[in-house]
Order: sequence, then structure tokens, then C-alpha cells
Amino acid sequence: MTRTRTAATFAPPVMEARRWLEGVMFPENRPLINVSQAAPVDPPPLVLRQAMAEFAVTEDRAHVYGPVLGNPDLRTELAVQIGQHYAAEIAPDQVAITSGCNQAFAATISAITDEGDEVILPTPWYFNHKMWLDMAGVHAVDLKTGDDLLPDPDAARALISDKTRAIALVTPNNPGGVEYPAGLVRAFYDLAREKGLRLLVDETYRDFDSRSGPPHDLFAQSGWDETLVHLYSFSKAYRLTGHRVGAIATSADLLAELEKFLDTVAICPGQIGQFAALWGMKNLSQWVAGERDEILDRRAAIQEQLPRLTDKGWRLLGLGAYFAYFEHPFDISSDELARRLVPEAGVLLLPGTMFVPQDDPAGKRQMRIAFANLDRSGIAQLFERLRALSF
Amino acid sequence: MTRTRTAATFAPPVMEARRWLEGVMFPENRPLINVSQAAPVDPPPLVLRQAMAEFAVTEDRAHVYGPVLGNPDLRTELAVQIGQHYAAEIAPDQVAITSGCNQAFAATISAITDEGDEVILPTPWYFNHKMWLDMAGVHAVDLKTGDDLLPDPDAARALISDKTRAIALVTPNNPGGVEYPAGLVRAFYDLAREKGLRLLVDETYRDFDSRSGPPHDLFAQSGWDETLVHLYSFSKAYRLTGHRVGAIATSADLLAELEKFLDTVAICPGQIGQFAALWGMKNLSQWVAGERDEILDRRAAIQEQLPRLTDKGWRLLGLGAYFAYFEHPFDISSDELARRLVPEAGVLLLPGTMFVPQDDPAGKRQMRIAFANLDRSGIAQLFERLRALSF
Repeated sequence: MTRTRTAATFAPPVMEARRWLEGVMFPENRPLINVSQAAPVDPPPLVLRQAMAEFAVTEDRAHVYGPVLGNPDLRTELAVQIGQHYAAEIAPDQVAITSGCNQAFAATISAITDEGDEVILPTPWYFNHKMWLDMAGVHAVDLKTGDDLLPDPDAARALISDKTRAIALVTPNNPGGVEYPAGLVRAFYDLAREKGLRLLVDETYRDFDSRSGPPHDLFAQSGWDETLVHLYSFSKAYRLTGHRVGAIATSADLLAELEKFLDTVAICPGQIGQFAALWGMKNLSQWVAGERDEILDRRAAIQEQLPRLTDKGWRLLGLGAYFAYFEHPFDISSDELARRLVPEAGVLLLPGTMFVPQDDPAGKRQMRIAFANLDRSGIAQLFERLRALSF
Repeated sequence: MTRTRTAATFAPPVMEARRWLEGVMFPENRPLINVSQAAPVDPPPLVLRQAMAEFAVTEDRAHVYGPVLGNPDLRTELAVQIGQHYAAEIAPDQVAITSGCNQAFAATISAITDEGDEVILPTPWYFNHKMWLDMAGVHAVDLKTGDDLLPDPDAARALISDKTRAIALVTPNNPGGVEYPAGLVRAFYDLAREKGLRLLVDETYRDFDSRSGPPHDLFAQSGWDETLVHLYSFSKAYRLTGHRVGAIATSADLLAELEKFLDTVAICPGQIGQFAALWGMKNLSQWVAGERDEILDRRAAIQEQLPRLTDKGWRLLGLGAYFAYFEHPFDISSDELARRLVPEAGVLLLPGTMFVPQDDPAGKRQMRIAFANLDRSGIAQLFERLRALSF
């Protein structure tokens, strides 16, 4: 049997979970509660859809190739808005657009690593990060987190070898939900800088952070772009998942390297998605603020109803952005539990085993609930179903 | 200096050529003739743009994630149409949609190779194929072609080692323009099958082939999907370059491996591009036939006017699809010639050095002219300017 890149990793968890639904009937009085998806399920607001439609009909550039690193107008606006969000100065050539945030991660890894290199990933990890490292021939070095799901910079320091090229954080965290304190993110930045590593910070869920003000001060550091690689997605804020538009901020030199990868794997980001992202940034800030309020209210609902689950032995490990991360009280592995929840409780969620190495026992006890698409009454129903479980 | 994947390859040629235009003024009576682009520069027909606009406004699924391997309705229709084009039976699960044809190539390589493996590429090559192999840690083994630009199966056989995993063909060829005879494609298929290799056939320019009937009989072979990986793009037929939608046909098993790569690098193809491709397949066959006629007429114009260049020592090596591939008569390298043509003749084209290894002298004599966006009078002007050159 020939060894291949893809054989070095696992099947996409989201696609696997979707297959658990096949052939299962959900009774009318107990419809499926799908809390597996880390993405909005509704379309963008009508005004944005109408703007996209007009763009498609009237603008030739909606349909032809653009620059590999994204359209200049979008890069310029994003540089301004990153600057505002993080209280810093960002230049347009320090920003690029990618076909989704996953692609920004993949391109970055290709530009900073080679076969056999290492990247430190806190566990539980975002599985697409782990999958890409596997396929890139890069060893993902697990940085275990404790019950608060926060990675420890000293523990990370102990894992650094002469093959380490980067540390990759996700905050607010997927799958854990936790918002990393600014001081913690800064400590990782200082460590990376001291050791000559890149610090990747995936802030896909940034717009739903419960804190006000800049979530960290990295962009305000002199020479930030030699160390920091900031990853962002327009998919959540403007509900553009189906258009594949993400972004990256780092040095212009590193972006020139990424350009090789992006040219070869995508040529350019989709034009309508880029247009929508720019239109959204210019017109939808109030609307996004409302979305954030709604998600924060759902988060509050989980907090309020939490005793109904802790009564039954569940423990909440992390809560924030789209996610609640739980430890379940049962004597079966989370992957078996997750599969059985589909027919037995009408609930689809992802088990902790999808977010840790196979030999890490923590995953077997943990479950991710992506609650963002569930309103207060849905959350109450979900908790009722989980509370009623016995195995 | 740390070694990285992207450092193993060169900068994107198209972006580099675009930079040659910076700061150059083109007088009104001699505007730039841009024959560097292997893609349509006009938008899709209005009826398709209107259909896309309506889809964006009225359909929620225009905006949310779809399956990694593409939407089922598009896969089904493409399977039918590939079957019609090649007089064969194709199942929907033997077909997948990708974010452009480059991505289909990249995903395939990740699913069939590992570090240090080899893939045989005829030269002149399509540079994005070479770039991806470089970044994947795969050695591109050059299969030199002669004055007819056709690769020789016996020469390929002599290059096969125990590390060879595939042979990758492009027909009609980019950059060479030549349409590979059906028997030649079949000979490569038989060789690949005998040796247990995959045969990648990139048919991005298929819809502009001058021949009628199936361009090869590979899809009609029993068990074709164990050997053949067919790559296709919707970008040229329906002018959808800015929407990134390509396709692949091979075994369902191999597609399940590609799914890991595609999930991680793209999640799913853009929804509006997929909608447009499906709408195009169902409604624009007559329109595409007209586009093909137009391009074939431009090809005929090149043939007719050819003596004006051959008089001056130029030689035509290949002609077809979007491309004419020439040997120039000057004592300077094609890359210097191409750079000088921008200010001195108002012509942007790509030099042969972009399509061969640095140590291959053939590239220095060769030039690619992508004529598809140039009408008869434009072709006459281009030839006039090239005819007038002296170096």
C-alpha cells in the first residue's frame, strides 16, 4: 500500500457526523436538534443579498479573476477595521483575503514549515488544523489544557524543540468556547518572539467575544508582523459560509510566500464573497452587533439552565462564542454517546474524541455543543433531553 | 534560514507578469495587447448573471455550507454530461466539484503521493502543476516533448521509477495549444494502468477542442476510475473564473480521500459558482457552441496570418484551445524578450522560461500567446507588432 498525504489523517468529522443522520427518522414531536455546526445556518440579511445580486448583474468584475491575495479595496478596508478593533495601525499590504479561514491556516503552514517540522496545538484542537498539519507532514505537538481549557505558556515552552516553527491558538476557542485572556495571548506572543517562532491566532469567532475593547494587544507591538499571523473569517459575522471568504494579517513578506500556495490551490478568492465582505464591513456593523447580542443572550441562557445538567453530573468546561464544552457523566465514550444521541435523543453534537489525539482519555468524557443556532426555547429542549439520558 | 514548502517553488508567473505592467504608459494609438491570460476576460452572458442574482436573493442555500465534494444536483448533472461527451456511463459518486481546477489537481496529488514521490509532467508544463508538486514535496520528472509538443509514451516509460505515482497530461494543452490525439491519450492510459499509476488528464480547455466526438475513449474502458483522474473547469465554458468552480472524475474511493484535503483547504466550493455551473450546463449549450466557433475562427485567423511571422523567422509549435505556442527568432532569452515587449511593443505574453525547468534551453526560445480574448483585427495588430520587432 502506497503512503499518501491524505492517508496520514482522519476523515472530516463534520461529514462523518452528518452520515450518522442517514436513515434515522425524527418524530414530529421530537425533531432533530442539530448542535454540531460551528456556523450560522441562516442566510445573510436581505439587504446584503440584494447588494450581491445587483453586483452580479451589473459588475463585470464580479465574474473574473482578481488578485491572488484579494481585492485591494477589501484589503484596505479590512486593514482599517482590524486597526480599529485592536487599537493599532495596520497597512493594507499586511492583510490578504483567502477562500475561507481554513485556507489561510493551510497557506500559512506551507509558508513556514517543511517535512518533519513541528507546530504546537493546544488540545482540544480545531480538527481542521490538526488535519492540515497531518497532510503537510508536520507533527502537531499536543499542548494539553486543564479543566479551564486554557493553554499554559510554560508548558508550551517545555515542548519547543529545534523543529518547532509555530504555536497555533484559537480564541475565542473552537471547540472549547473559552475566550483567552489578553495577558495569556500576550505571554504566548512573547514566548514565540523569544524563540523565533510564529504565533498563529485564529480569531474566527472574534465578533462574538463577550468582552469589550481589543481582545489582545499584539497588533500594538512594534514589529508584530514578524511573529503574529492573525486569521479571520467573514463567514460568521455576515453569514457568508457558502461564499468562502476569510483573511489573514501578517508581514507583506510572508504574504508574498503565501501567494504561491494560494495561487496554486485557489487562484483567487471568489469575487461575490469578497464583494459581500466589503459591503458587510461598510454597512452591517449595527446588524453584527445585534447578532452578537443574540448569541450572548443564548450563552446566558445556557448559564442559567446549567444546574439542570450539573444536577445530573455534567460539568461545563468552557462557554463562549458558538460553543459550550461539557464533560458528560456516563461510563461510555463520547463517540459512542454522540452516535447514540442521534436516534435515542434526537440530538446531533460532536464528541470530544474528534478534538484530541486517540490516546488522550480526556476526549472520551467531553462533548461540544455548538449552540449559536438554538434559541432559548431550543436550549431548554436540548437540556431537557440531555437531562433525561441514562446509560 | 528555515526551509519551507513555499520556498521550494517559484512566484506565480501570472502575478509576476502583471507586475511588468506597473508604471508603463501605453499610448492611445497603441494600447496594450494582453495575450498573457489563459482565461476569458468578459463576464458570463446576462441571462446567467440574472439567474445568479435571483438565486442569491431567493435561495438560502446560496449562502450556507454545502457538502465538501459539491452539491448533489451538480454532481449528478455533470456525471450525465461527461457521459454524453465521452460516450460512456459515469455515476454521480465518481464526480466531485472543487474550488477551481487547480484545487482538483492539488487535492489529487495529496491523495496519491507522499514526500519524495515522483510525478511525470510533459514539458512545457502548466506552471501551477509544477508549483504544487514542488510545494507537496513531490519531484516533477520532466518528460521533454519535441517540435510537435506531443509527449512520447515510450519516453515516459523510461522515466518510471519505484517512486512514480502518476503521469499528468493537459489536453488541449496549456501552454502548447496542441490537442492530444485519442490514441496518444489511450497509450498513456495503458502505460499507467500497466504500471499501477494514476493518469491525470486536465481537460480545462475541452470545450474549445476543434475535433468533434469524444476526444479520447478512456471513460469507456472497464475500471477506468482505478487509473484515470479527469480534471475539468467551468471557468472557461461559462466565464466563471471569479467564482472558482472546477471538477474531477475518478473513483468514489479516491474522492473519499480527496474529501479530507478539500474539507481542510476549502470546506466546500462556493455556492453561487456551483449554481451557475449547473444553470450553465442546463441552459447554455448553444451559447458555448457559439463561443467555441468564435475561438476556432480566431485560431483560423492565426493560421491565415502565420506567414507574416514565419517570414521573419518565427515558428509555430502548437495551436489550439486558447493558445499559440511559438519559437521566436531572436538571440535573446524569451524572458528578457517578454519583459521588453511590454514597453517596446505594447504586448504582454508569457515567455517559455515559465513553462520549463531553468536548465532547459527550449524555454528561452519559446513564447505563449493566449489569443482567445483577441478578435481578428486584434490578431492582425499583434502580428504586425511582432513582425516589426528587431533585437
